[in-house]
Amino acid sequence: MTSRSPDRTGVLRAAEKVAQILAPTPLLPVEHDGRMFWLKAECLQPVGAFKIRGAWHRLTDLSDDERARGVVAVSSGNHAQGVAWAARKLGMAATIVMPRDAPPIKLERTRELGAEVVLYDRMTEDREAIGRALSAERGAAYVHAFADPWVIEGQGSAGIEAAAQLGREPARIVACCGGGGLTAGLALACPGAEVVPVEPAGWDDVARSLASGSIQTVGANPPPTACDALQTFATSPLNFAVLQARCAFGLSVTEEEVCTAQRYAFSRLRLVLEPGGAVALAAVLAGKVAVDEGTVVIASGGNVDPLAFARVIRP
Amino acid sequence: MTSRSPDRTGVLRAAEKVAQILAPTPLLPVEHDGRMFWLKAECLQPVGAFKIRGAWHRLTDLSDDERARGVVAVSSGNHAQGVAWAARKLGMAATIVMPRDAPPIKLERTRELGAEVVLYDRMTEDREAIGRALSAERGAAYVHAFADPWVIEGQGSAGIEAAAQLGREPARIVACCGGGGLTAGLALACPGAEVVPVEPAGWDDVARSLASGSIQTVGANPPPTACDALQTFATSPLNFAVLQARCAFGLSVTEEEVCTAQRYAFSRLRLVLEPGGAVALAAVLAGKVAVDEGTVVIASGGNVDPLAFARVIRP
Repeated sequence: MTSRSPDRTGVLRAAEKVAQILAPTPLLPVEHDGRMFWLKAECLQPVGAFKIRGAWHRLTDLSDDERARGVVAVSSGNHAQGVAWAARKLGMAATIVMPRDAPPIKLERTRELGAEVVLYDRMTEDREAIGRALSAERGAAYVHAFADPWVIEGQGSAGIEAAAQLGREPARIVACCGGGGLTAGLALACPGAEVVPVEPAGWDDVARSLASGSIQTVGANPPPTACDALQTFATSPLNFAVLQARCAFGLSVTEEEVCTAQRYAFSRLRLVLEPGGAVALAAVLAGKVAVDEGTVVIASGGNVDPLAFARVIRP
Repeated sequence: MTSRSPDRTGVLRAAEKVAQILAPTPLLPVEHDGRMFWLKAECLQPVGAFKIRGAWHRLTDLSDDERARGVVAVSSGNHAQGVAWAARKLGMAATIVMPRDAPPIKLERTRELGAEVVLYDRMTEDREAIGRALSAERGAAYVHAFADPWVIEGQGSAGIEAAAQLGREPARIVACCGGGGLTAGLALACPGAEVVPVEPAGWDDVARSLASGSIQTVGANPPPTACDALQTFATSPLNFAVLQARCAFGLSVTEEEVCTAQRYAFSRLRLVLEPGGAVALAAVLAGKVAVDEGTVVIASGGNVDPLAFARVIRP
């Protein structure tokens, strides 16, 4: 089922389906250092992240028979909530494999949406294997967090929305990047836009893959990062095919740059961003990518534990 | 100049002027306890509060000669920033009289917008007298935070926007209330809507005024409140005339209910609300007013010090 390539027609179809059930997220004008750019506030989605888009596109394309057998996904928490939300809307059973060290708020919210949560150890267990095994055992659809054409197309619907809100295709889109589902989707959605993926320092496998021309993985001992949503060890060939054709380079940001962006969003934009949802803004504030009135920066998620957020914003 | 009554024609004119310079703030769907209502996120304005609306309507109606002589306002911080922002856009000098105990972030931001800040003591000095004296001395326009027809009409533009976003006039609008500028403006903007003002407990002079049929003041020793933006001792005849004709009653919320609303906005909506900006949502979450798909709840501001916010959200 996941052997096809994602394409723009699929993105447009996803955007139509998403528009039937979700209000467009605001495209907020931001003035910074005398320049102006647009922030697409995906943190304002009902589950607090863009992941609801891909999950909805994927699950609504399942047959009645497939829906009856439920869905399995693996996620640190945002894809988890997206899938759980979509499954509940469609009356489907959802099982989500989540790391034991996922932010408590993400575990809690996923369960609250009616999903069964299965825990694993992020550093020692193979989450994919656990997810695939559960899916096979139950005959349930397996929805990968990024290596899935529906998921990529669904995430791309954010780009269709942004272009409609802007009145034209964005010239540049700066996006948070884990496995590359969102960035690939945006690249398909806006074929004329320069798409810039941003990753946490030390987890910049996509940037290194783009630079080297082949898929690279995160090193053996990656540094700790607060960006739980972006701790992906490598992108997939499905995503990389799109990214390689469309992204000249990728950027990375330090943990301190991420905190600065979270503080900026808090005090200047009155938005709550989780670390992984703030990396694109972090790259902009750090001056790593130029912005103007044709630039859309994605604020991809806002699911952060109160204690962690309080630590970041306290002077 | 402030002797006329505010009216709906003025609100419509204000809405047109505001639309030329400010993007509409998002009207976000909120699902709570199985019911759905709309949140008008005025905290996402460039200055973090709706006050920018009234200030813009007022200052743009000044003559060139008046603009050259500058503007004076009295405010705990949101009207301050609204006036400073509008003045800067119009190349006007702004002097703002602010309480010494205003949140540091509000003092800092007002100065950052180029205004001269004059401090006073909230409990012992007469801020109105200081403001009027400065205005007379400098020949500058005095823009009252709520007892001004332009200010009332300008704030009402939020209601025009909400009705356009909703596709119809809201049946009910629940709004944060200090002096009654916003609530009176909304009442004029949406003549068919039930408008419910919400105040902090012990500062519910508008609710008591509505109940008694004449303007009441806050008692001699009002309780401390985190809602710095709503510490108004009495509404004005200009505002009360509108409110009395249109509001059946007012509500009040406790400090704990306000904290609950701030936490809810943080973790469920990913929005930063200051205490005074959260009272309308607080009344809804506390079950003090019924909501449905025709209800608009105003989240009026998000200018809150990081330390204060961290204390509220910490578990």
